[in-house]
Amino acid sequence: MAQVAFIGLGNMGGPMAINLVKAGHQVTAFDLSQAALAQVAAEGAKVADSAKAAVLGADFIISMLPAGKHVAGLYQDVADAIKADALVLDCSTIDAATARAVGASLAAKGIAFVDAPVSGGVGGAKAGTLTFIVGGSAEHFSKAQTVLTAMGKNLFHAGEVGAGQIAKICNNMLLSVLMVGTSEAIQLGVDNGLDPKVLSEIMLKSSGRNWTLELYNPCPDVLPNVPSSNDYQGGFMVDLMAKDLGLAAECAQQSQSATPMGALARNLYVAHQRQGFGKLDFSSIFRFFSKK
Amino acid sequence: MAQVAFIGLGNMGGPMAINLVKAGHQVTAFDLSQAALAQVAAEGAKVADSAKAAVLGADFIISMLPAGKHVAGLYQDVADAIKADALVLDCSTIDAATARAVGASLAAKGIAFVDAPVSGGVGGAKAGTLTFIVGGSAEHFSKAQTVLTAMGKNLFHAGEVGAGQIAKICNNMLLSVLMVGTSEAIQLGVDNGLDPKVLSEIMLKSSGRNWTLELYNPCPDVLPNVPSSNDYQGGFMVDLMAKDLGLAAECAQQSQSATPMGALARNLYVAHQRQGFGKLDFSSIFRFFSKK
Amino acid sequence: MAQVAFIGLGNMGGPMAINLVKAGHQVTAFDLSQAALAQVAAEGAKVADSAKAAVLGADFIISMLPAGKHVAGLYQDVADAIKADALVLDCSTIDAATARAVGASLAAKGIAFVDAPVSGGVGGAKAGTLTFIVGGSAEHFSKAQTVLTAMGKNLFHAGEVGAGQIAKICNNMLLSVLMVGTSEAIQLGVDNGLDPKVLSEIMLKSSGRNWTLELYNPCPDVLPNVPSSNDYQGGFMVDLMAKDLGLAAECAQQSQSATPMGALARNLYVAHQRQGFGKLDFSSIFRFFSKK
Amino acid sequence: MAQVAFIGLGNMGGPMAINLVKAGHQVTAFDLSQAALAQVAAEGAKVADSAKAAVLGADFIISMLPAGKHVAGLYQDVADAIKADALVLDCSTIDAATARAVGASLAAKGIAFVDAPVSGGVGGAKAGTLTFIVGGSAEHFSKAQTVLTAMGKNLFHAGEVGAGQIAKICNNMLLSVLMVGTSEAIQLGVDNGLDPKVLSEIMLKSSGRNWTLELYNPCPDVLPNVPSSNDYQGGFMVDLMAKDLGLAAECAQQSQSATPMGALARNLYVAHQRQGFGKLDFSSIFRFFSKK
Repeated sequence: MAQVAFIGLGNMGGPMAINLVKAGHQVTAFDLSQAALAQVAAEGAKVADSAKAAVLGADFIISMLPAGKHVAGLYQDVADAIKADALVLDCSTIDAATARAVGASLAAKGIAFVDAPVSGGVGGAKAGTLTFIVGGSAEHFSKAQTVLTAMGKNLFHAGEVGAGQIAKICNNMLLSVLMVGTSEAIQLGVDNGLDPKVLSEIMLKSSGRNWTLELYNPCPDVLPNVPSSNDYQGGFMVDLMAKDLGLAAECAQQSQSATPMGALARNLYVAHQRQGFGKLDFSSIFRFFSKK
Repeated sequence: MAQVAFIGLGNMGGPMAINLVKAGHQVTAFDLSQAALAQVAAEGAKVADSAKAAVLGADFIISMLPAGKHVAGLYQDVADAIKADALVLDCSTIDAATARAVGASLAAKGIAFVDAPVSGGVGGAKAGTLTFIVGGSAEHFSKAQTVLTAMGKNLFHAGEVGAGQIAKICNNMLLSVLMVGTSEAIQLGVDNGLDPKVLSEIMLKSSGRNWTLELYNPCPDVLPNVPSSNDYQGGFMVDLMAKDLGLAAECAQQSQSATPMGALARNLYVAHQRQGFGKLDFSSIFRFFSKK
Repeated sequence: MAQVAFIGLGNMGGPMAINLVKAGHQVTAFDLSQAALAQVAAEGAKVADSAKAAVLGADFIISMLPAGKHVAGLYQDVADAIKADALVLDCSTIDAATARAVGASLAAKGIAFVDAPVSGGVGGAKAGTLTFIVGGSAEHFSKAQTVLTAMGKNLFHAGEVGAGQIAKICNNMLLSVLMVGTSEAIQLGVDNGLDPKVLSEIMLKSSGRNWTLELYNPCPDVLPNVPSSNDYQGGFMVDLMAKDLGLAAECAQQSQSATPMGALARNLYVAHQRQGFGKLDFSSIFRFFSKK
Repeated sequence: MAQVAFIGLGNMGGPMAINLVKAGHQVTAFDLSQAALAQVAAEGAKVADSAKAAVLGADFIISMLPAGKHVAGLYQDVADAIKADALVLDCSTIDAATARAVGASLAAKGIAFVDAPVSGGVGGAKAGTLTFIVGGSAEHFSKAQTVLTAMGKNLFHAGEVGAGQIAKICNNMLLSVLMVGTSEAIQLGVDNGLDPKVLSEIMLKSSGRNWTLELYNPCPDVLPNVPSSNDYQGGFMVDLMAKDLGLAAECAQQSQSATPMGALARNLYVAHQRQGFGKLDFSSIFRFFSKK
């Protein structure tokens, strides 16, 4: 079993750290919140009183932080304290440019790095069924499995350092397009007299099939146990989708790529957010199309 | 076995009529093209020298025509020659308003009508594996199966007369959004150093999953045996997708529905068509995003 | 002075008919509303008890109706009662296809026709300062001035029959793009700390200059006496802009034209309408972008 | 007359520096290109062999560089060599965040800074008729006029440091929307039989009026002496518009603003650029809509 440092114990990081403990790893955790530390301590993790103290002697350092600037700041502070043959895994969803910069600066000190953003939400974090999309060398991807398998079920190797972030935002941009497109197609049917269940069933078995129709129908009362059937509570918040679409826009901007559908989805989500719906599940964009 | 009149023997109608013959039905066919008539005659269909002659005595009248005006014109001409307990199936893809008007005017003469647009393309028409999306009463949907099962595999009952057309264009509008969204997501990944096969595989197993990633990847050489791997030949032409998106726009216009994604897809397809790509497969929209 | 029949005395038609009376024309009016008839009678118009009665003996027949079907229906009913050398002016905003069909069917009876949709709103109708955009022959455009100058100030000759409708919807589609684009540009500035008055002033003197910045700023309290400074009351309703954008969509559909900006504007206006803002001025789209 | 350092003598910077010389200022110039230095030397400017040497003793330091990173790098290098009561004017078009950071770091050393991006193109730079949109204190805006009046005609004070950049990209984003919207409106008219000159004239006198119709019509042969009538040569390149729209996207991203029209315009321009049209004038987006 491995020595693991875990930095960032939020809604996602907390349960991920606990799953590492349960799998038998020796976890030393750090977070600015004492409450968050107490929760993981109760499950058997050690707590450190600084990020630097947490990483000392660790074989794996895992970070789960809100944005690129936090990740860059963390590794600027603690790089010198990381041991030479350790593997750093940043599981935050951040811009690829920062991931690459952090990877390069650690590599300069001989420290291995992979970016490993997740999907699967808080539910997946608790259940240990997250998906990890990993950017790094084949060797480091292989080594990362020691810890990732304790937290997730699907592990993808997207390419070199940064590729994990790119693949994740490509996926989430596409997801937003599926969600908005499915919402407007269902509402168009409803406006013309169709039953949303019947239409959803037909499209699910036809060329309109997509993940949102299968598992996450945005129209209330078509599927049970999805946010749309629970007043859009729970799930993946509009605020988070807007953040990911911002990362996609930034990425498209840097590579001079045309992403008109993703850009339109981003703008609809931002407008939705501004109307005060940022805390609802992202399938609530359906309301943009339905009649008040 | 039934007496079937079949009007309209184009790329789709021809093989559909032949499948009816093969299933043992007595088919009397009509088309303005002698060549088309000769082809179905060679397979055992009778040929009539007018649409009116074709429908005389038929239990089922099936039409497969290019646009609403042709369908409306046909049934204005032949309604009086149709026998009282016959069932009319219009398999053309046309606007729902015309379908409803034709249905209502036939109903006024005591003739049953369903709209039954298809998906599955020329390949499906030949193989007898089309999908039919049917609008009409439950009784007529049930009766229609006598002939539809000879031509297709999936039969959906979308609702009352016109609902077949609505469901089909909702599906095809969504399909266009999936295709454009998937194209730009893959190209964004490629522009940022990802391998399109790896990215497609990741998204297919994640929340970006959709029909185009499964069966119709728009990026050349990701999937074998799809139009994108064959220089965008074959498949479902840009011209036809543009037509269907026009029907969706018209429908959204009549119901005052908001369909921003579908509208954007329509405009990209129309621009693509204007650049001279109307005869390519609709996955060729990928070229809009890739670098020249 | 001329004998004028005026059919359709709504918010626009009423004041237009009255201005014809004031200019000395002999106006015979018809409308389904007795109240509307009473108002123009009080100003000196004769009232007829049917559209047919109104057109008898008239040199000019002017119609101002809500939609294409009303215009088509009217002239189907009254064509035989119109005298041979009369000129028909339809001032309704309708689709060009209907305008052309009505023009052709009147021409077949030797009756001259121009389409002459207006802009300028109820205020312009009352003040006699409307703009007329006329489609028809040069000769008929010239003849039309006899009556148009009593109701408007700017008379444009757009081309043959139907061209008036086309030019009007091209203009109004562009107007909607100016309004949405100006709204989002101002809000982007405000979100980044700029004063909307200062930014509007700069853009008005730069390459962002457009009619909305000049006369109809959508941001409250930048210009006095515009709807945005009066809680978006008065002006040109969202419902009417949505109608015109629907006509533009239909037109683009028929000519297979790409109008991505116009289509996006239409969809934003329809969504705005669905949120319950149909009766506000169309500059209220600004609210879509500002924070709640 | 003032001692002026001028850094960056490209297509814009070269003529600007020359106009300062002509106005009687003592200009010391620096650029990495010897050819560029030779051109301004021939007009009477001194040349320095480093940026640091150029700024020594200058009352005004003016920079005109391609991107934020160049501006940030320059002032990091030369800040210590600038005299205490000098005023720095950065005329580059860059992101507001970098402008603010540079301003703050100079302020920390007691050096005054304004951002003063320009519009008016190479023609305006040569003629000395540029527009400057200035961000900085009222006092510094006033002081800046000493040099700006030698290079430009319209001077706007947009607000505090960074506001010049914000106002410029708001304007240019709006300009892109006007250009695309005007292009598609004219083409819609042409597709429906209208003469583009007649339609342009009508819209120019109606509510579709905007800067592009007045001065820069994108349809060939409507206006003389504009890029569209010269095969889209000259003017403001697609590459530059795409750059500015990228800055707008970044800005909208940071302030979580919704700019759907600007985002659509950006994506159409990027796709146009990818088709190989980056060096054409930005009105060439008209070709996206016209038939091949």
